[in-house]
Amino acid sequence: MGTTQLESVPEPKYWHLRTVLSEALDSEFSVGEILPNERDLAARFGVARATLRQALEQLELEGRLQRRRGVGTTVAPPRVGVAVGTDQHAWPGAPDDAWQPVDCVLAVPPAGVAAALETGAEEPVHIVRRSRVFHGQPVAAELLYIPASSVPDLTAIDAPSGSARARAVLRELQHLELEGRDNAVELGSARADDAKELDRLPGAPVLVVTTRFLAVGRTAALSVATYRADTCRLTFGDSGSVEIHHGPERQAS
Amino acid sequence: MGTTQLESVPEPKYWHLRTVLSEALDSEFSVGEILPNERDLAARFGVARATLRQALEQLELEGRLQRRRGVGTTVAPPRVGVAVGTDQHAWPGAPDDAWQPVDCVLAVPPAGVAAALETGAEEPVHIVRRSRVFHGQPVAAELLYIPASSVPDLTAIDAPSGSARARAVLRELQHLELEGRDNAVELGSARADDAKELDRLPGAPVLVVTTRFLAVGRTAALSVATYRADTCRLTFGDSGSVEIHHGPERQAS
Repeated sequence: MGTTQLESVPEPKYWHLRTVLSEALDSEFSVGEILPNERDLAARFGVARATLRQALEQLELEGRLQRRRGVGTTVAPPRVGVAVGTDQHAWPGAPDDAWQPVDCVLAVPPAGVAAALETGAEEPVHIVRRSRVFHGQPVAAELLYIPASSVPDLTAIDAPSGSARARAVLRELQHLELEGRDNAVELGSARADDAKELDRLPGAPVLVVTTRFLAVGRTAALSVATYRADTCRLTFGDSGSVEIHHGPERQAS
Repeated sequence: MGTTQLESVPEPKYWHLRTVLSEALDSEFSVGEILPNERDLAARFGVARATLRQALEQLELEGRLQRRRGVGTTVAPPRVGVAVGTDQHAWPGAPDDAWQPVDCVLAVPPAGVAAALETGAEEPVHIVRRSRVFHGQPVAAELLYIPASSVPDLTAIDAPSGSARARAVLRELQHLELEGRDNAVELGSARADDAKELDRLPGAPVLVVTTRFLAVGRTAALSVATYRADTCRLTFGDSGSVEIHHGPERQAS
């Protein structure tokens, strides 16, 4: 079932159990259903509790299961396809932007961000915090770093803080001509503040999308966006908004 | 150090330790260096072994540390930026393709793949296995599913198997006019065969990139590519080949 005849590789016990459990999820359980407890499951499949837990962790990593303290383990709904903007000519805050500004502060960014922005080591930049909600659920949190030189006409008196300030900064940014953007995605772990916003524990696996916005020959803004890895699949390219429900890699094992 | 003043959130102990350890890695250790053993590290930071292990797991997830049985825990080199093709007009196997064909079989694909390809439930398709090597290291493994209807002029007698067969299938594919492609990336776990090829244990976290190649109004081929999540960051968009060493999210916590 579901294996190709490409080659045969010996599998560890937890991995075999993961495959068997995955097939059981497809055939016997529906989305949202609570699984039997670990003792009963271990007995049913004739494995040690430790092996069962390893297999459950795998399926959680793959987004098949959700484990919540006090509730138990439930069958997860299919991941949601979330478009990662690849429109080369749109600044953050442009019309149709899926992100909502939450806050804005002036602060010294982390060293890696300062290096990418080519700002001085102790030079404060505008840090806009935004959040992205999809079907009523927070799916991503973003810190957007904007050097003062990218928004030279911004005045301090107009909207000194909060989301109004964030909007003012983004409005000023539109005055620069955007030359292009780079995107990168990698595995990361949720920082404490992001975790809280995304309703996860600190350290939960996340997909980190870093975007450099290029203008006047340099990096004019840098976005670090943290997406829930358990519920999101990121779509990009031609038709970035297409949702592929129940992606094929799910059955590819 | 490295925290913004956006908001203050109480952190679990392992998360605080992760931050302290991360700073120690920056200031005291160099890439490839072996960390002191767990007992010594736990003593130095005044934490329980279990807390230490949780923090080390976080840093491994973030690609800062590598843990190998028999070697110990070493400081990982920066992740490698690997371009995920977003060239809308290139088939797999086009000149400059970074992937190397390894094998090709005719087999029934997993149900999810068959649904995406709109092939019959028990209809075999060409499954091309390819691998991607970067600086001498395998970084990704791919299964490329191609229905027989996408390569109608392929003959069985020419190159019956292996990489020659894979090349013959890809060559035939170029005859179709490519209309576009969709990409999606999500977190997954390495299947046993991929894990072996990528030198990981089955179930290790991977980034799964699914690409649908669209031609004659339908999905003419489907690629499921598995990238090592510990060593890779995937770049896409404008200048997909740009490598951002030591990405800013690493210091963003």
